[in-house]
Amino acid sequence: MHMVDIIRKKRDGGALSDAEIDAVVRGCTDSSIPDYQLSALMMAICFQGMTARETARLTRAMAHSGDTVDLSGVDGVTVDKHSTGGVGDKTSLVIVPIAASCGVKVAKMSGRGLGHTGGTVDKMESIPGMRTAIGREEFLSIVNRVGCAVIGQSGNLCPADKKLYALRDVTGTVESIPLIASSIMSKKIAAGSDRILLDVKVGSGAFMKTQADAEVLAREMVEIGRQVGRRTVALITDMDRPLGCAVGNALEIIEVCETLRGQGPADLTAMCLELAANMIYLGEKAGTIEAARAMAQNAVESGAAFQKLCEMVEAQGGDSAYLRDTARFRLSPVQRTVRAPQSGCIVRADAEQIGRASVLLGAGRETKESAIDFGAGIVLHKNKGDRVEAGEAIATLYADSAEKCAEAEKRLHAAFTFGAEPPAEQPLVLERIE
Amino acid sequence: MHMVDIIRKKRDGGALSDAEIDAVVRGCTDSSIPDYQLSALMMAICFQGMTARETARLTRAMAHSGDTVDLSGVDGVTVDKHSTGGVGDKTSLVIVPIAASCGVKVAKMSGRGLGHTGGTVDKMESIPGMRTAIGREEFLSIVNRVGCAVIGQSGNLCPADKKLYALRDVTGTVESIPLIASSIMSKKIAAGSDRILLDVKVGSGAFMKTQADAEVLAREMVEIGRQVGRRTVALITDMDRPLGCAVGNALEIIEVCETLRGQGPADLTAMCLELAANMIYLGEKAGTIEAARAMAQNAVESGAAFQKLCEMVEAQGGDSAYLRDTARFRLSPVQRTVRAPQSGCIVRADAEQIGRASVLLGAGRETKESAIDFGAGIVLHKNKGDRVEAGEAIATLYADSAEKCAEAEKRLHAAFTFGAEPPAEQPLVLERIE
Repeated sequence: MHMVDIIRKKRDGGALSDAEIDAVVRGCTDSSIPDYQLSALMMAICFQGMTARETARLTRAMAHSGDTVDLSGVDGVTVDKHSTGGVGDKTSLVIVPIAASCGVKVAKMSGRGLGHTGGTVDKMESIPGMRTAIGREEFLSIVNRVGCAVIGQSGNLCPADKKLYALRDVTGTVESIPLIASSIMSKKIAAGSDRILLDVKVGSGAFMKTQADAEVLAREMVEIGRQVGRRTVALITDMDRPLGCAVGNALEIIEVCETLRGQGPADLTAMCLELAANMIYLGEKAGTIEAARAMAQNAVESGAAFQKLCEMVEAQGGDSAYLRDTARFRLSPVQRTVRAPQSGCIVRADAEQIGRASVLLGAGRETKESAIDFGAGIVLHKNKGDRVEAGEAIATLYADSAEKCAEAEKRLHAAFTFGAEPPAEQPLVLERIE
Repeated sequence: MHMVDIIRKKRDGGALSDAEIDAVVRGCTDSSIPDYQLSALMMAICFQGMTARETARLTRAMAHSGDTVDLSGVDGVTVDKHSTGGVGDKTSLVIVPIAASCGVKVAKMSGRGLGHTGGTVDKMESIPGMRTAIGREEFLSIVNRVGCAVIGQSGNLCPADKKLYALRDVTGTVESIPLIASSIMSKKIAAGSDRILLDVKVGSGAFMKTQADAEVLAREMVEIGRQVGRRTVALITDMDRPLGCAVGNALEIIEVCETLRGQGPADLTAMCLELAANMIYLGEKAGTIEAARAMAQNAVESGAAFQKLCEMVEAQGGDSAYLRDTARFRLSPVQRTVRAPQSGCIVRADAEQIGRASVLLGAGRETKESAIDFGAGIVLHKNKGDRVEAGEAIATLYADSAEKCAEAEKRLHAAFTFGAEPPAEQPLVLERIE
């Protein structure tokens, strides 16, 4: 089997056989196929696509290119959740405790932030003492004891995907739905859970800019799940505006606590209840989605979900006193109020621009090596759809210097557009695909 | 200027700017752009193509990526000729002396054979003493004194093309008309001649399998010539059957001599006269193609063209006694007659298969490192369109072992198809594009 023949076959619109796909992934993993052949194949896939069978096979081969997590030691159905990434997206830390408090087992690996999007692992590390690098055995033991654990990706998980993704990033071959779908799903499959809930975000702050693209991606991933025997549900959700009010690590943890106490922003609360309900339903703790919604609502109202978050944080070495009294979090010393330059309705609150402003403040990473200021970030007092008066506070910025605040303020102003009339209301959850 | 942005632009169907193309060729030449980015760009070009301006710019940039030959020291108009390669294609060694004997200056660099196609440099080296590696000054001095010289490609000519071609070969990105056109034309432009005659071959033995493809390629190359100020004419010629009777190095030189003496095969003679006439016309030694045809015919009949070949061979150190008495050539010792397995008309004499049979005999190279047996090869006694009786000799094979002959005979039989009726006659020159 010659790689050049495989490339030519795909270039000419053919479907690769299972053996051909396996050979590509094997050669990628052991570096026997040179990068220039892999990148040519990736570009050919960008143009010719892949069939559902090819995509599933690629996913499976990448999932098994390195270590896989064996969750057979966990009692009950395990449910994982993945978000395609957004600005101010702290949903994982709200819904994992809700689902776990309803009996679903969640053994989740999360990522760090990069560019304008944040990462759950960074957010958790703003809690003093919190450990995110936890060995396999302790991880499973926490999941069995507490019901949930969220840790950083460890070990040699999906090395083929890691290599291909890095190559795609520098060869203009990121924007291919089957490649995106197989990259995401391979990591979820390697991470071992029985069921997968996908939050596919669409809008200015998301990777998918249109609902149509998001839908295609969601359908591909659900289909991959079906083909590899991991039941998968996808929600397509709005990321045209930041989710909730807080963008930044400690700031988002505070908002997570408020939300689990029933005092969070309406949009974030609604989104989290819907996601959590889907996890509960996937985890077979409710017979219908409606019943699952009621269970999620009750878990928040009863305080059980917040209690579950505290348990998980404690199990992972974190100081839950910070969660019970969020005033303990050390926020960045320099604070600046951003005011509306005019009266009117906010018709656009560009999530990507707001995310980039938070990076300027120190809350995110420009490159993988950048250090994070856990206390930095943005709290939005107004969001898309809100009416404001000129001079009214629309946001507060947190950073360790006035210069960063000034720079971020410029960026933040560019994120907002004002109009006479409120924009058409957009539902938070646009579609559910199963 | 980031390479990944250039790749994305082309992937999305954009036209690259001159500066972007120059940057790619510069980065290719100095290796500052990694191969995996170059191959991704090549694949994107395979799908999106290039505009005439882009193709001309790429050609120019590759032509100037290394040494260029300065032919300003040659008196008169210089005309180069390039064939896209075929089986038994010895036209260069016939037409260069014809054109030179009519006053055209020809300073030609030729290649070696690879795979099923032969190369002019190999053929010349079957003449004892013949030198094909000749320094710049001596090369020009021979051209000025004799009127023509044919040498191997020397120096650091078109390193960007060399690198890109090698990369395209292993990444399934050879089959792109603008990339093929710019690769061929960059070498011709670097080689310095004022005018260029292209012989674009079409058929089973050629790279272009259909006349439509050959036409597109020919038009692109003529357009490149126009854009860079090197007048170019292309003939599209038939390569569905081998040209002439001889396939092999010394065997082809013998046929060259016969043709220049007016005793060559009709197809080869007609093709060479037409190509030579176009060189004479391009070299401004005749006002019309018709007048040029008469001059070419006369150069053969008068013996002037054969005399010119002998002069050129002597100037390059070769022993012209071999040309005057071709019985001196040492042919391979084992000879085998291939006979028609049935009576009928030859409706197919597959040039590629016949070329591959000649490689099995030792006349060509499987890889760049293979050694050549100059005395090996095939003489066809019958060709496409001929009627044969069962058992009649259709070819003689020459090799240094009976095993090679036996293997080649099998391949040769596969090249021929017999039918009741002769195939439709196909003109040798299908089209002229200027």
